Amino acid sequence: MIKEKQSKHIELKNIKITDPFWSRICELVRTEVIPYQYEAFNDRIEGAEKSYCVSNFKKAAKVAAALREGKKSPTYPVDKWQYNDENSDKDSFHGFVFQDSDFYKWIEAVGFSLSNHPDGELKKKAQEVIDLICNAQLENGYINTFYTINNPSAAFTNIRDFHELYCFGHLTEGAIAYFNATGERALLDATCRYADLICETFGREEGKKRAYPGHEITEMALVKLYEITGEKKYLDEAKYFIDERGKRPCYFDVERNQETKDGDHVYEQAHLPVREQREAVGHAVRAVYLYSGMADIAKYYGDEELYSACKDLWDSIEKRKLYITGGIGATAHGEAFSFDYDLKNDMAYAETCASIGLVFFARRMAEIYPDSHYHNVAERALFNNILSGMAEDGKSFFYSNLLEINPEACKKDSRKHYVSPVRQKWFGCACCPPNLARIISSLGEYCFAQNEKTIFIHQYVGAQVKADNADFEIKSDYAENGKAEIIVSPKKAINLAVRIPEWSNDFSISCPYEIKDGYAYIKISEKTSVSLDFKPKAKLIKCSNRVRENVGKAALSRGPFIYCIEEIDNGKNLQMLRVNPDGEFLKDGNSIIADGFREKEDSALYYEYKEAEQMPVKIKFIPYHKWANRGENEMSVYFRI
Amino acid sequence: MIKEKQSKHIELKNIKITDPFWSRICELVRTEVIPYQYEAFNDRIEGAEKSYCVSNFKKAAKVAAALREGKKSPTYPVDKWQYNDENSDKDSFHGFVFQDSDFYKWIEAVGFSLSNHPDGELKKKAQEVIDLICNAQLENGYINTFYTINNPSAAFTNIRDFHELYCFGHLTEGAIAYFNATGERALLDATCRYADLICETFGREEGKKRAYPGHEITEMALVKLYEITGEKKYLDEAKYFIDERGKRPCYFDVERNQETKDGDHVYEQAHLPVREQREAVGHAVRAVYLYSGMADIAKYYGDEELYSACKDLWDSIEKRKLYITGGIGATAHGEAFSFDYDLKNDMAYAETCASIGLVFFARRMAEIYPDSHYHNVAERALFNNILSGMAEDGKSFFYSNLLEINPEACKKDSRKHYVSPVRQKWFGCACCPPNLARIISSLGEYCFAQNEKTIFIHQYVGAQVKADNADFEIKSDYAENGKAEIIVSPKKAINLAVRIPEWSNDFSISCPYEIKDGYAYIKISEKTSVSLDFKPKAKLIKCSNRVRENVGKAALSRGPFIYCIEEIDNGKNLQMLRVNPDGEFLKDGNSIIADGFREKEDSALYYEYKEAEQMPVKIKFIPYHKWANRGENEMSVYFRI
Repeated sequence: MIKEKQSKHIELKNIKITDPFWSRICELVRTEVIPYQYEAFNDRIEGAEKSYCVSNFKKAAKVAAALREGKKSPTYPVDKWQYNDENSDKDSFHGFVFQDSDFYKWIEAVGFSLSNHPDGELKKKAQEVIDLICNAQLENGYINTFYTINNPSAAFTNIRDFHELYCFGHLTEGAIAYFNATGERALLDATCRYADLICETFGREEGKKRAYPGHEITEMALVKLYEITGEKKYLDEAKYFIDERGKRPCYFDVERNQETKDGDHVYEQAHLPVREQREAVGHAVRAVYLYSGMADIAKYYGDEELYSACKDLWDSIEKRKLYITGGIGATAHGEAFSFDYDLKNDMAYAETCASIGLVFFARRMAEIYPDSHYHNVAERALFNNILSGMAEDGKSFFYSNLLEINPEACKKDSRKHYVSPVRQKWFGCACCPPNLARIISSLGEYCFAQNEKTIFIHQYVGAQVKADNADFEIKSDYAENGKAEIIVSPKKAINLAVRIPEWSNDFSISCPYEIKDGYAYIKISEKTSVSLDFKPKAKLIKCSNRVRENVGKAALSRGPFIYCIEEIDNGKNLQMLRVNPDGEFLKDGNSIIADGFREKEDSALYYEYKEAEQMPVKIKFIPYHKWANRGENEMSVYFRI
Repeated sequence: MIKEKQSKHIELKNIKITDPFWSRICELVRTEVIPYQYEAFNDRIEGAEKSYCVSNFKKAAKVAAALREGKKSPTYPVDKWQYNDENSDKDSFHGFVFQDSDFYKWIEAVGFSLSNHPDGELKKKAQEVIDLICNAQLENGYINTFYTINNPSAAFTNIRDFHELYCFGHLTEGAIAYFNATGERALLDATCRYADLICETFGREEGKKRAYPGHEITEMALVKLYEITGEKKYLDEAKYFIDERGKRPCYFDVERNQETKDGDHVYEQAHLPVREQREAVGHAVRAVYLYSGMADIAKYYGDEELYSACKDLWDSIEKRKLYITGGIGATAHGEAFSFDYDLKNDMAYAETCASIGLVFFARRMAEIYPDSHYHNVAERALFNNILSGMAEDGKSFFYSNLLEINPEACKKDSRKHYVSPVRQKWFGCACCPPNLARIISSLGEYCFAQNEKTIFIHQYVGAQVKADNADFEIKSDYAENGKAEIIVSPKKAINLAVRIPEWSNDFSISCPYEIKDGYAYIKISEKTSVSLDFKPKAKLIKCSNRVRENVGKAALSRGPFIYCIEEIDNGKNLQMLRVNPDGEFLKDGNSIIADGFREKEDSALYYEYKEAEQMPVKIKFIPYHKWANRGENEMSVYFRI
């Protein structure tokens, strides 16, 4: 089953993005976010929480040098998760234990960016960062500034919480992206030496630790490292991490001499062996990173049982735990999935990173078997929850992407302590902005795939692409008008498989096609231009009445975009608005204007039922991802009908 | 202004409750709850969290005796709020620091109960408990087992958190109730000695601590102690506590050597001087206990500014922060009031004790000026949120009284960790069951009041009552049918003022009357029988559209009762039900049967809008307070219309 329809994404160096919608955003990442991140981890952003990233690497390099000279190891405490005390010893580690990953995500984004935009200045900065990293590597290959600075002998003693394997995963992904873009091996070589240490340290063999990552990502990173180096042991190590996870006794308890109780370790997806996991649970970012690694391993080893778990986990998300915006992780408690159909709008978490991880998972599932469900969801996430994570000017970011915001509640209701009604400049725990930078600067990898017979167009992003068996160009007006033209120059007879977006009720394709699993398959034997028109229209979307929040309500979509209403356009108390489902929905630039009503504000807290007094109003919708770009105000995706 | 219309509740010993609805509940408290509490604080309830109350008093008595003999004080730690470690030193304190109050609330309920039901066995038990308390009193008058057992010299060093003054308040109220019922003074005398110590310790004079209670109640207790003893210094001490509260620097910071910042101490209502407090905020029980004390002081000192604050605080609650069930305190975070109109149904807190405190506040406000708003709200609280706190058999209790429960969410959503979908046997922090016992066993105090000219009927509870200027009997069928007959035998010409319930749109009164401030005033000069019929009917109630939760929804009421729907009657997924507002509402015993629809369950998580498929159903409502008496299931007060 697994082997039947496999495909592989097309590498970034063979893709040049030329999209009227996405190019602006990619440029923003290149010209705003990447430089901003550089300033951030150098602690040069006024008013932002400190990263300490560069200073930590410099300290670690000093320790590494001292150790090479045979000097004694430092012995600062390694008992906390965050070290923000300005008064603590200057030579000790500062910031979060996983702060190194800021560097690595930046390098990955730089690598992706350099693939398409050679930039000597940027490369020079990257080279400096890479030097810092390489200098911080210990003789045994180990790279982690927290333990190196504070106590190298304590390395690998708190696998559950302290993110060493997570940082290694990001290092690996960064090193690979940079190597792919520049051909320069220094960081990749250092990474391989660290990977070798990890292979020697963790495994089922006598003398090794039977651990697996407390925060997943290592698994998919090792698979990538195998793909770039051909070293099978890296793939096997990834498989080991997947296979070992969730076994009993749980390593996370073994390492702290505790007993494991039934139901423990849901947060880290270590509550069950992975093949028995059929419901998406726990910390949402961890979860989708794990599921991505599971899909990789299922594919490479033809592991049907693992693949079946992946399919069930996908269904669990898509059918019961997915916000209409492509957000996942419904609760801030543990930044986690909640139970089925528990999708609160004003208490959502829907972390930007989690949606990004969902796109990772989608790509891998689609590469195993091309069913349009996967990229339908990826599209939902990309155009809505993920884009919402960044301001229009690329200078501020959302960590959580709620579907309903009342700024008064954010300030006065402590249950919403985690909700900011406007994007923030940077986060001390800065996972989301760099993650945004890396997915947007590698967007092409999520759009196109190929195998021997077929080229897959998963996302209609305008681009010029060199595939193995064809060159093709997409001229896309998809975001705005649902149209695309694909000009394919094949080297041999191939299929072009184009995804039919789930939102399209009516479409036209200029060539003969057959539909399978949501893709239209078009036979191409000579240079062909395929015109696609998916005819987007404003549509009211209902949410399952299993979701208690949304009964009696609807949302508005057009094409890939989910819309929302904002106070600045529609006044305070958005809950007093009702949309007339039989009214007109007029597109006006980026907005949609709908017919509706506004109820008169009630004066009494309770009163005997009577029909509400209401007056007709025009209700203005904007795409969800554009909200909160005009100051602090109320917003809602769902509205009464 | 304040002096104009004052009245005073009629004392319990002059009231005999004979109500078809309430007598059963009063009996339940007398025969089930009071004996159950006794077992609870003796730690004889299997499966319940331990109280340690009796054992603490025994230990304290030993220390008191040893100190009298000149032995050294114990020096166990006094740094925690709870001491539940079974392995800790046997002689040290166990349980919560405020555990003594369990005893005192029980004695108060016993006192109330004995007023009407002499019971030699119960009195004997009470006498034993009183002996235990008196034996634990130190020579200087101090009574508090936590500090006495662990370290007497640390007394009064953590006024903010450790509830000494709160326990004193409950001791006082218990001692007074017991004295009123039995005429026995031992506990009252001990209490006065402790009160004297408190007057010597706290005040504005040189050498005294400028503190005020961390958890209010002391204020109203001292007023009661003044009323029973005539000692003005107790009233003045209460006034001192009221006046000092919220001044800067805040004593709670002074005692821990901290700086006070703007906005600190909202939780304890110490964020502003009380006369500047105009919005109900912070811990809801603390708040209404404070406001009750403020009303007492406003009345006794004719303090118009304080009274104006009380009126604004009342409005803040009644108009913007009150659940339809009479619950207050919308958030579990700090068991506190949330901001205006933030009244979530499935995340409510609505603690039983807070509603009880609201009734205390209502009574005091009505005694200053008889406006029906006060007892309308008291009625709402008594018949709904408060009664919901106790199971039909008097054997289990709700602490929180939510308006929407999905048992699955209680188990799987950690944001609802505090929500139990069924009543619990007892609580380690057992404030609510004893508070229920004391308000129900003193119900009469909240029903009737008098002044020179007027007898007030605030609540239509069947009773035989001896007032100063009249005897009267109420034959009440109010709960069930909204009717009452009041037979008044006056000793002189008086007014009978009867409250017109806010739910009554149409009523008849068999005598001539004038209406003022929601009361019908009837002149009575000879024995008269007044028949009242308030003609309850099932009514749909809308909630202000400022409350985001409830737009598009309604609740159902009949007479004083708010109704709800339960899964056991109406199936799972109550959100799929809609009530037809134009349909019939048929009373069927305790239930009301309404016409409505059930939507077909959706299969897709998201789909293009179409009219919901629905089938007509009968929807069964029961009074809110009766819910969760038939096992664990979904419940909702609000429903779609």
